[in-house]
Amino acid sequence: MFDSIHVIGLGRVGSAIAARLVERGLVVSSEAADLIILCVPDAAIAEVARSIDPGPWIAHVSGATPLGSLDPHERRFSVHPLQTFTRARGAEQLDGAWAAVSGETPEALGHGLWLARTLGLEPFELDDSMRTLYHAGAAVASNYLVTLYRAASSLFEEAGAPPEALVPLMRRTIENGFELTGPISRGDWTTVDAHLAALQSRRPELEEMYRALAAVTAP
Amino acid sequence: MFDSIHVIGLGRVGSAIAARLVERGLVVSSEAADLIILCVPDAAIAEVARSIDPGPWIAHVSGATPLGSLDPHERRFSVHPLQTFTRARGAEQLDGAWAAVSGETPEALGHGLWLARTLGLEPFELDDSMRTLYHAGAAVASNYLVTLYRAASSLFEEAGAPPEALVPLMRRTIENGFELTGPISRGDWTTVDAHLAALQSRRPELEEMYRALAAVTAP
Repeated sequence: MFDSIHVIGLGRVGSAIAARLVERGLVVSSEAADLIILCVPDAAIAEVARSIDPGPWIAHVSGATPLGSLDPHERRFSVHPLQTFTRARGAEQLDGAWAAVSGETPEALGHGLWLARTLGLEPFELDDSMRTLYHAGAAVASNYLVTLYRAASSLFEEAGAPPEALVPLMRRTIENGFELTGPISRGDWTTVDAHLAALQSRRPELEEMYRALAAVTAP
Repeated sequence: MFDSIHVIGLGRVGSAIAARLVERGLVVSSEAADLIILCVPDAAIAEVARSIDPGPWIAHVSGATPLGSLDPHERRFSVHPLQTFTRARGAEQLDGAWAAVSGETPEALGHGLWLARTLGLEPFELDDSMRTLYHAGAAVASNYLVTLYRAASSLFEEAGAPPEALVPLMRRTIENGFELTGPISRGDWTTVDAHLAALQSRRPELEEMYRALAAVTAP
């Protein structure tokens, strides 16, 4: 579908994408590219897009950024790998992840689906107008998972327990299909109140978070 | 150390513990038990303990319950498997998990460490007075992980994206050592504000949770 692809921006995501395209035998080059993939920071996408002469297809890989930021290009789409990336790993980070594909025409969507699959991602279509809600969901699931671990670690440290003991618990919570156990699932508000009293006393900065999560968790 | 162990209560945790003790060749019996393990609901521990004649060692497996609830027994300890259990699995659920061991004497602690290791758990000592703080940490890490998934799934459904796509993202967040990525890590408050506006419009019941987590996440 595309023979020569130019990846602009070799940060966490761009370097994994470029490495995977090379693995797939696709020329990754700025010469005569028929697809340009912008892997630059969200805030730079519009400016970089405007600096490129229209002609080749252009795509971005941002979850938060609407397609309109690729103006004035009309041959455009986006593929957002729904994954968290680290510089410590390479193209294999794409394996097993899903990808949100947005495009304004059947042809654009087709190109997006092709790119996602070529990268080793499992694509689904995302309406561009739903992008912010989708991205908020991804941030809640991934970024706030980090927040939970940090908060729980801080409570463990205060209690003299090893924070690494939380890891098998959190892994199994996912493996068990997110089945809710613990005091709220049992309607045990005495224990919930005891938690809140302990937080007030030893980690008051976490109390509001605990309360807000309890309110959403309770049936 | 103990030859005949009686497990009272065969719910999620008790049935896994009893199965593991049988695997280890320990007689699990109510006849002449020299250790009685209470795997009953937290609210029933004190009453069941009082109904047992003092003599054998007695233990509970609750994270939230102080040792005093085992009165009038003095030969007592607790081992809390730091894991979430499901009825769909057996003794293997104990493998790889840690356990909080509490006891008021070196002998009691020794018995607790022995029981934890016999069950296949990695023990650490927990001061009984730190129990509530510890248990709050476990609840934050496990129960609220379920809450995050449910909240993110609800946003994905609203956006027309498949909730199961969140699972590889959440697994990798753990595998990557809880490295924070996303808008807050970049100081991108424009995106955070856009998330909040989308939540206000489409899922207002999640706004307070999102705000409280953002407040704790921000450096």
